[in-house]
Amino acid sequence: MMTIKRRLLLISNSTLHGGGYLEHCKQHIQSFLGAEVKRVLFVPYALHDRDAYAKTARQAFESLGYGLDSVHEAENPVDAVQKSQAIFIGGGNTFRLLKALYDKNLIPAIRKKVFEDGIPYIGSSAGTNVATISINTTNDMPIVYPPSLQALGLVPFNINPHYLDPDVNSKHMGETREQRITQYHEEQDTPSVLALREGGLLLVEGDKATLLGITGARLFQR
Amino acid sequence: MMTIKRRLLLISNSTLHGGGYLEHCKQHIQSFLGAEVKRVLFVPYALHDRDAYAKTARQAFESLGYGLDSVHEAENPVDAVQKSQAIFIGGGNTFRLLKALYDKNLIPAIRKKVFEDGIPYIGSSAGTNVATISINTTNDMPIVYPPSLQALGLVPFNINPHYLDPDVNSKHMGETREQRITQYHEEQDTPSVLALREGGLLLVEGDKATLLGITGARLFQR
Ligand SMILES: [Ca+2]
Ligand SMILES: [Ca+2]
Repeated sequence: MMTIKRRLLLISNSTLHGGGYLEHCKQHIQSFLGAEVKRVLFVPYALHDRDAYAKTARQAFESLGYGLDSVHEAENPVDAVQKSQAIFIGGGNTFRLLKALYDKNLIPAIRKKVFEDGIPYIGSSAGTNVATISINTTNDMPIVYPPSLQALGLVPFNINPHYLDPDVNSKHMGETREQRITQYHEEQDTPSVLALREGGLLLVEGDKATLLGITGARLFQR
Repeated sequence: MMTIKRRLLLISNSTLHGGGYLEHCKQHIQSFLGAEVKRVLFVPYALHDRDAYAKTARQAFESLGYGLDSVHEAENPVDAVQKSQAIFIGGGNTFRLLKALYDKNLIPAIRKKVFEDGIPYIGSSAGTNVATISINTTNDMPIVYPPSLQALGLVPFNINPHYLDPDVNSKHMGETREQRITQYHEEQDTPSVLALREGGLLLVEGDKATLLGITGARLFQR
């Protein structure tokens, strides 16, 4: 039997209320990356100010003992991915992030590193959305138009990060998250959606997925 | 001076907490349509169950004294638009709605009726989003992929319906609506965004726009 070389840590949200950037998942990141990885390649495309974002991410990873290079500082982003030991894609706007991944031709490069070379991939929020089949279940506003909603396809399902349970006391009439995902499943041939509450993480190793954190998740199936 | 024949009633939300379908804006709809209009053409594409949706809309308009035809029941939707006296596009999922308008080639037909024939157009929620330049500022989940985010362009700005002010007590870490619209304006050449709170309506007559309702709106400019 072929084993899929796939190691992913998919985080619902980068910051938990009251905590610092990546603080709630530092230990998970450290045990996921382990001692062999020395440097992480950061993908800051989900936010507009890439320099500031890289600085924030660098501080967090250096405090864990890892060096961090931001792909936006590389002369050749595809080359930077090909040489990377580990990849971290941060949150922000999922449409902006996916469009940049297409514009810079990084989709096949990242897939190859994860599936063939087996390097560890960490995604948070938008970085978790783009790791799945498609960004059809992002919560973000479509501020730009990517050439497709198909994403990296590192797992065979979709994720809804920052999942919020319906609030029975709300007077707001916009759709609840549950209604939105249900509307997605009214469409033909739509995959399952794992709704990850804030604080939740999904660890994927080969064909095995493990839910981490204490807030849990809901699985929506068509 | 050329006068633009344009009459639009753009509603933030079809149902206000505690009320029935279109109940909070019945009087505005009645005075907007007046006595000359006898029948309204309804566009139900934002929801999956078009028959059920048309039934709900029919009841609401019949209670105001107007007949209602649903475009999904017409043999030729373009033809139905061309013969319409007034159009009402209801809410639901904005991506699904816009994709259907493109698939059925209704964009130019509706524009022509509004700009050249001057028929009244009512939009609610998703039906308000598609009346603007683009759906870049919808709140909806991108459950399908329309061929473009460009919309009917009946007004020269975008709208964010169901606008929610930032909640300082929230522990949720997803972006506030204000942050989302601000991210939109980080992109080049983006138009102004009128954020319509629930309960708000925008009446557009020629080149004049009037805010109705008591909840008010915020104007975001790049
Ligand atoms: Ca986001
Ligand atoms: Ca909606």
